[in-house]
Amino acid sequence: MQPTPEEPRDRDIRGPVDASVVPRFAGIATFARLPRLDEVGRAHVAIAGVPFDSGVSYRPGARFGPAHVREASRLLRPYNPAQDVFPFGAQQVADAGDIVANPFDIAEAVRQIEAGALDLARHADKLVAIGGDHTIALPLLRAVHAKHGPVAVLHFDAHLDTWDTYFGAPTTHGTPFRRASEEGLIDLTASMHVGIRGPLYAKSDLDDDERLGFSIVTSEYLEENGLAAAIDRMRARIGDAPLYISIDIDVLDPAHAPGTGTPEAGGLTSRELLRMIRSLADRNIVGADVVEVAPAYDHAQLTAVAASHVAYELISAMAPRA
Amino acid sequence: MQPTPEEPRDRDIRGPVDASVVPRFAGIATFARLPRLDEVGRAHVAIAGVPFDSGVSYRPGARFGPAHVREASRLLRPYNPAQDVFPFGAQQVADAGDIVANPFDIAEAVRQIEAGALDLARHADKLVAIGGDHTIALPLLRAVHAKHGPVAVLHFDAHLDTWDTYFGAPTTHGTPFRRASEEGLIDLTASMHVGIRGPLYAKSDLDDDERLGFSIVTSEYLEENGLAAAIDRMRARIGDAPLYISIDIDVLDPAHAPGTGTPEAGGLTSRELLRMIRSLADRNIVGADVVEVAPAYDHAQLTAVAASHVAYELISAMAPRA
Amino acid sequence: MQPTPEEPRDRDIRGPVDASVVPRFAGIATFARLPRLDEVGRAHVAIAGVPFDSGVSYRPGARFGPAHVREASRLLRPYNPAQDVFPFGAQQVADAGDIVANPFDIAEAVRQIEAGALDLARHADKLVAIGGDHTIALPLLRAVHAKHGPVAVLHFDAHLDTWDTYFGAPTTHGTPFRRASEEGLIDLTASMHVGIRGPLYAKSDLDDDERLGFSIVTSEYLEENGLAAAIDRMRARIGDAPLYISIDIDVLDPAHAPGTGTPEAGGLTSRELLRMIRSLADRNIVGADVVEVAPAYDHAQLTAVAASHVAYELISAMAPRA
Amino acid sequence: MQPTPEEPRDRDIRGPVDASVVPRFAGIATFARLPRLDEVGRAHVAIAGVPFDSGVSYRPGARFGPAHVREASRLLRPYNPAQDVFPFGAQQVADAGDIVANPFDIAEAVRQIEAGALDLARHADKLVAIGGDHTIALPLLRAVHAKHGPVAVLHFDAHLDTWDTYFGAPTTHGTPFRRASEEGLIDLTASMHVGIRGPLYAKSDLDDDERLGFSIVTSEYLEENGLAAAIDRMRARIGDAPLYISIDIDVLDPAHAPGTGTPEAGGLTSRELLRMIRSLADRNIVGADVVEVAPAYDHAQLTAVAASHVAYELISAMAPRA
Amino acid sequence: MQPTPEEPRDRDIRGPVDASVVPRFAGIATFARLPRLDEVGRAHVAIAGVPFDSGVSYRPGARFGPAHVREASRLLRPYNPAQDVFPFGAQQVADAGDIVANPFDIAEAVRQIEAGALDLARHADKLVAIGGDHTIALPLLRAVHAKHGPVAVLHFDAHLDTWDTYFGAPTTHGTPFRRASEEGLIDLTASMHVGIRGPLYAKSDLDDDERLGFSIVTSEYLEENGLAAAIDRMRARIGDAPLYISIDIDVLDPAHAPGTGTPEAGGLTSRELLRMIRSLADRNIVGADVVEVAPAYDHAQLTAVAASHVAYELISAMAPRA
Amino acid sequence: MQPTPEEPRDRDIRGPVDASVVPRFAGIATFARLPRLDEVGRAHVAIAGVPFDSGVSYRPGARFGPAHVREASRLLRPYNPAQDVFPFGAQQVADAGDIVANPFDIAEAVRQIEAGALDLARHADKLVAIGGDHTIALPLLRAVHAKHGPVAVLHFDAHLDTWDTYFGAPTTHGTPFRRASEEGLIDLTASMHVGIRGPLYAKSDLDDDERLGFSIVTSEYLEENGLAAAIDRMRARIGDAPLYISIDIDVLDPAHAPGTGTPEAGGLTSRELLRMIRSLADRNIVGADVVEVAPAYDHAQLTAVAASHVAYELISAMAPRA
Repeated sequence: MQPTPEEPRDRDIRGPVDASVVPRFAGIATFARLPRLDEVGRAHVAIAGVPFDSGVSYRPGARFGPAHVREASRLLRPYNPAQDVFPFGAQQVADAGDIVANPFDIAEAVRQIEAGALDLARHADKLVAIGGDHTIALPLLRAVHAKHGPVAVLHFDAHLDTWDTYFGAPTTHGTPFRRASEEGLIDLTASMHVGIRGPLYAKSDLDDDERLGFSIVTSEYLEENGLAAAIDRMRARIGDAPLYISIDIDVLDPAHAPGTGTPEAGGLTSRELLRMIRSLADRNIVGADVVEVAPAYDHAQLTAVAASHVAYELISAMAPRA
Repeated sequence: MQPTPEEPRDRDIRGPVDASVVPRFAGIATFARLPRLDEVGRAHVAIAGVPFDSGVSYRPGARFGPAHVREASRLLRPYNPAQDVFPFGAQQVADAGDIVANPFDIAEAVRQIEAGALDLARHADKLVAIGGDHTIALPLLRAVHAKHGPVAVLHFDAHLDTWDTYFGAPTTHGTPFRRASEEGLIDLTASMHVGIRGPLYAKSDLDDDERLGFSIVTSEYLEENGLAAAIDRMRARIGDAPLYISIDIDVLDPAHAPGTGTPEAGGLTSRELLRMIRSLADRNIVGADVVEVAPAYDHAQLTAVAASHVAYELISAMAPRA
Repeated sequence: MQPTPEEPRDRDIRGPVDASVVPRFAGIATFARLPRLDEVGRAHVAIAGVPFDSGVSYRPGARFGPAHVREASRLLRPYNPAQDVFPFGAQQVADAGDIVANPFDIAEAVRQIEAGALDLARHADKLVAIGGDHTIALPLLRAVHAKHGPVAVLHFDAHLDTWDTYFGAPTTHGTPFRRASEEGLIDLTASMHVGIRGPLYAKSDLDDDERLGFSIVTSEYLEENGLAAAIDRMRARIGDAPLYISIDIDVLDPAHAPGTGTPEAGGLTSRELLRMIRSLADRNIVGADVVEVAPAYDHAQLTAVAASHVAYELISAMAPRA
Repeated sequence: MQPTPEEPRDRDIRGPVDASVVPRFAGIATFARLPRLDEVGRAHVAIAGVPFDSGVSYRPGARFGPAHVREASRLLRPYNPAQDVFPFGAQQVADAGDIVANPFDIAEAVRQIEAGALDLARHADKLVAIGGDHTIALPLLRAVHAKHGPVAVLHFDAHLDTWDTYFGAPTTHGTPFRRASEEGLIDLTASMHVGIRGPLYAKSDLDDDERLGFSIVTSEYLEENGLAAAIDRMRARIGDAPLYISIDIDVLDPAHAPGTGTPEAGGLTSRELLRMIRSLADRNIVGADVVEVAPAYDHAQLTAVAASHVAYELISAMAPRA
Repeated sequence: MQPTPEEPRDRDIRGPVDASVVPRFAGIATFARLPRLDEVGRAHVAIAGVPFDSGVSYRPGARFGPAHVREASRLLRPYNPAQDVFPFGAQQVADAGDIVANPFDIAEAVRQIEAGALDLARHADKLVAIGGDHTIALPLLRAVHAKHGPVAVLHFDAHLDTWDTYFGAPTTHGTPFRRASEEGLIDLTASMHVGIRGPLYAKSDLDDDERLGFSIVTSEYLEENGLAAAIDRMRARIGDAPLYISIDIDVLDPAHAPGTGTPEAGGLTSRELLRMIRSLADRNIVGADVVEVAPAYDHAQLTAVAASHVAYELISAMAPRA
Repeated sequence: MQPTPEEPRDRDIRGPVDASVVPRFAGIATFARLPRLDEVGRAHVAIAGVPFDSGVSYRPGARFGPAHVREASRLLRPYNPAQDVFPFGAQQVADAGDIVANPFDIAEAVRQIEAGALDLARHADKLVAIGGDHTIALPLLRAVHAKHGPVAVLHFDAHLDTWDTYFGAPTTHGTPFRRASEEGLIDLTASMHVGIRGPLYAKSDLDDDERLGFSIVTSEYLEENGLAAAIDRMRARIGDAPLYISIDIDVLDPAHAPGTGTPEAGGLTSRELLRMIRSLADRNIVGADVVEVAPAYDHAQLTAVAASHVAYELISAMAPRA
């Protein structure tokens, strides 16, 4: 049950179950087969599921996202050569289970998620949340703001998610960043959407978004100018501010992430997304979420494998360097 | 576009698109390729979708049920030999489209559905609703009650759906018949659950249900005593009262209806369910619903074919006999 | 590569590949891993695929049926305890490959299939054909008639397949038994449809069918009266005439055979169908087909496993008894 | 039911159902939830399904393509930022339903499709057809030719579709551009195949194609030289001629479009294809088709989402600019 | 986290997570959301996964069975009306996680499983194992024998699983009951196979089985004589001996359990199987397994729902009655 | 049955079945519908399946890979324009069926595979093997070494496959190239891994690999530097040595190859992989394998189409040029 011996880390850090003793398909699934938070007491990074999807406007099902991503994360291993780091050895990472949220009352659910995140903050320095739908970014940002004040938000998504209301509801998976902007949770001088594409409800969607202060790297920009240029723009924008990264898995092309609620053709490859995250290892990432994995539409864990790799790169980027 | 000539019916009745002219896979899908309600003005029976699933406690997705059932209903044909009736020739049947409901506010959605059903009642004598989750039975029963007073309810389901609240919510897919009982919408001397099976939250679930006044034919009873005995008990119970039939597709075994939200092993076959409905052709059916078809979990339209046949038998049972 | 030694058969008969030497998942797939007809020269029973589906009115894809059934038939083993017979030991059975048919010209295809079946008749006493759609029953019956004269036809299907024309086409998967009746290929005093259910285009469909001379055991009859009664009626009807058995896999309920073109709820279980076929082991079966397996709609070979077992029981019923 | 107010368009143009009132998953599916052609009388652009697939040589099923693409097109929204245009506001677009075609007689079907397209031409300036298999391009080009004379054809496909005959049939999904060339329907000085890849029957396939007059940008060329170079070659080739765009969805890699009949590895991404279409907004597009979507092989609407986005970009490129 | 209050049980028993506080789709999956064995210290019944499938002869994948069944078991609730018992309230039931087994060495794996079961026996009175393939029944029976001596074995399966060797291997999923018989682990006066069907390798398979001492109720017997007769034979055979129940999920028809390795048409319905298990509540069940769930072939958790219900009925039948 | 006449080849070479006479979906599946090796006696290139997957550490199922790839290879045609060669006309290619391997004993299986490959070497100059899992590369390399001595190995994979042992087993799908290195089968001055990505067990994995002598082009390198640079490095490395190419299909991104056992996000596209293989047509390829296709996780033959195209390009690259 011990990690492989060569990991250059503190003896008190407990890593994943040893796959040379317990096959990766065996055992009750925690994220990456890491210890539960209650087993280690406190952690540098906690992974928590937020199985809530009552804010979706099209295909529901992301409530099953955390369980699905945990199952797919059995494949993750301890050493990340792309970042040359042991993400689970250089820091204590633990699975905090799921934050409970009322599926029938969005307002109460948002309060529960904020409370759950604040509670976890007492046991872990940083939280990587697995959704659930994008509604959860609002209470998560509230909890981050309570600790860090306004943060830069790097938002990977096909959609802006800065609508005002939908069917009169102010808090859905299409509105978190508008609400967060209005509440002053975001440092808008250093925030950006990446991967935006597809039709909008109206031209004013873009104007509204610009007025809120976001900058955009579209999927079309990436196709035209290449990944390196997109990374440069992204890094220049976010600067050195405390950084919250929110990744809607639909930023990937449906070929790479069919299991999601509002697919849009023309997206990123997983290779591009992983490289973009890796480029952020020198930044001060204070929290993150990976949302909108809807297992009922997934095939052969395709989307969940991508999501678990994305979370793995985020955790790697959070790891302290020697 | 005319139905086949031999149908012994009023010349003013407009039937399905003629499959010998337009292949069944062609054309925009209405239920059974029937005319839209706006094309015929009024109808004896209106079919309406109610794409609402925010009341589900487990797998969501029944919001896509109406579209899925319409696609599968392309296979239905004009003459029903099992009941010896032309369901679309003996009465005008039309597709009324979908009743709109707010996905983010259960209470408002329930009001919208009741209003939609009452509005349809001005254009059609009877409504067969395609869900959507079972929450919709409550507003539908309210609309039926407005016209008929308390009605007998024949409820096919794996579950009782007479819970009190769930997460504090009084109106979910697990509570419609409790709320309806409390509101006096149901004639409890003539109502029955059929197909109940699987574990319950507590023994008191059964007591509560009995106190509300329902009678039960379990799936186990049917296995032990045979279908004929179950039909006899069912018919004896419901008597001649105005009858509302509510069919949760999960009354079928998951083998017959995988595409649903809370599957329970040990259910009915589609052959048994169809025969049970056929036995009701001599009753006064004033309305019906077929709910909980969740397409993301269906395979090869298996569940939707079953649901469309169930709706077809219901409409056939509603048809006037010469 | 030899069958297990205990089989009480002629040394010249070549059975399936020995599964204790070559795993059942290994090797190029012939039906039941039997030798090819060209390997044995001639056979008592030839299995041939007829990958033709241009006669279908709804979901196409049965052109891939033969390959799909061959793959699923890897699971079949040499001894059939239900009939107490070695179907591949008591008679030489061989896979004759596929009969080629033009996918773009129904009339030419029908001629090719008849010619192919007649050609096979020079190398094999009996043919079990794997479809393809039900159109192929017409040329197969012509070939059978050439040898045996009019034969009793036992037809398992959800549908009558005795329509006149469809879009002006006289030869489709809905018409083979009408054409065969008109051509005098069928002994109508001894023929029967089994498993009929679902809506019809018109009441006259039944009248036409009756006038053609067929008798019917509906799926509803079986539910009401039980399997034994249905078997009794079936056996009484077909008598001792040379018997051709035509099995549309959609006679099974969609739960048992989702992979087919025109599914109808309320069908037979595979257990019922297998038992019906087993009851015919004392009859003079001169040919058979198993049709309408559409792999694109199948799941986990569910339909193909059923079809391969059905073919296995047919071949077993053809086997001579000591 | 009104489009969002800011759209700069004529008050008489009727756009899609308003998604802020009617959820996108609700209502009977027309393309992009647009009005039916009979509701608006006439249109600048009509979308019509052509559910015909009897010309396919491998996997059938594209007959269900129009219904499948309509369902996936529920996700489209009114404003296209990539082209900065309101495709449904700058011009009247309407769903004309399906053109009926005989599934059992290719020659009659081709006549029906041509007649259907000519009939639609009386009600709409341009037609965007949703297949169906590629056979339909021939009658569609005949109808376009009747109005415009020879047109440039920009053909996106993995395959040349300029074979001569297949099984003696002159009109299949592999032959439309050969027949169209022979009939003089195409301006061969300005026509091109894009995305060609995969094995051919013979080297002469290329020679034949070249002799017909087509130019080719292969998928290999695109990989080697980049998208911009391919777009330059494409734009240079087609010039300013009236342009017909025919898109076989198998031009996309199977990862992006698994739901098609003759998949070939090594294809385009949806991001590349969308960008190529966007580059044509300054051309005179007089008609288009999107074909070969075979739903039985699709997953999570992956292929249909791509196809509906492709159609959306085509319609956007047709829209008049202020 | 407390079970509902009305359960008539010892206060020290810890039941499943309360679904009225934590939605059933939330939280890391243990079987039925029960506590882990390490949380309760010891239990009357331990559930343990045995993710081993290197003994399969056809479709592998049952190594993922335990995780898949755990996910599907989220749907189980505390009260079982069919047996009128609280299976998790009348006795302490806990999830013991998975028993580790070497996937590359069958002999070592069998030793590990026996050791794991013996180790669990120190913490739990009874073990219900979730496979994994049927190979695991041998070491599990060894562990049971160590405590109870020879036990009656009630074996539900399509196959006899009493072969001698396969490819020279004495221990595979086709041989456990032969090895167990030879080792004297089984009370052969009281043991039985139920649900046997499908072709065999040789007639001697049956002779061998009879010589070993097993009795058989075939699936054909059940179809012919009805469920009640089969239950009577089963109960008469097993008597009052300590009883081990081994359930290969392929005893169900593939329609009810597609997700398994060697499907055979003509099997039991889940309703029949559940009723058979319920009939055993008055017997002395000392252990059980549910094996051969292969998730890669499952659809919409169909097979896993059946398997989790089967395990639930087994645990219910083990529960002490007041 | 003859190939198209224009192929510039020896009259004695027998090509695939003629698709203008026998539709590609018809006939028993050999690879690319080529003749069997026993039909042609000997071949320049033999294709053989190796249905063995008992060496997998995660998702099993590659034992069904050969049958699955054969079915998908029906789509291949005789002329390869990308390499301007007739791969089946310039050399005799034949399907040698499957090499039998014991599924229960890895050591024996490895011996059987080596023996099978050596036996085939007497009938064919080169072998292209279709796996099966990557374990098979070891015995295949032993057989290649017997003829050619140490060979350059070009290894496309997400994983290094140079682990030492796993659960004490020296021969699994993670170890073939370590064992082969130790045995001196590989020319380590000219060998390379391409496409490596994803987390490792330990940093020492890379050190071990380097010490063994391999060079690496990671997927990350390809994203950063482009395909042309990667090809240049690859070609420079392998030089002119006799070359063995081993392709684990998981080198492709899961979007392109979901049907495999250990998927890793961020992989190659099929277009990139095909181009890399094409660049090797001027090298001396002495053997190859394509492994780890696990059909149970595939969709619409996506993975198998890619694998069959990969094999086709390999065979094309082996073909002699005029």
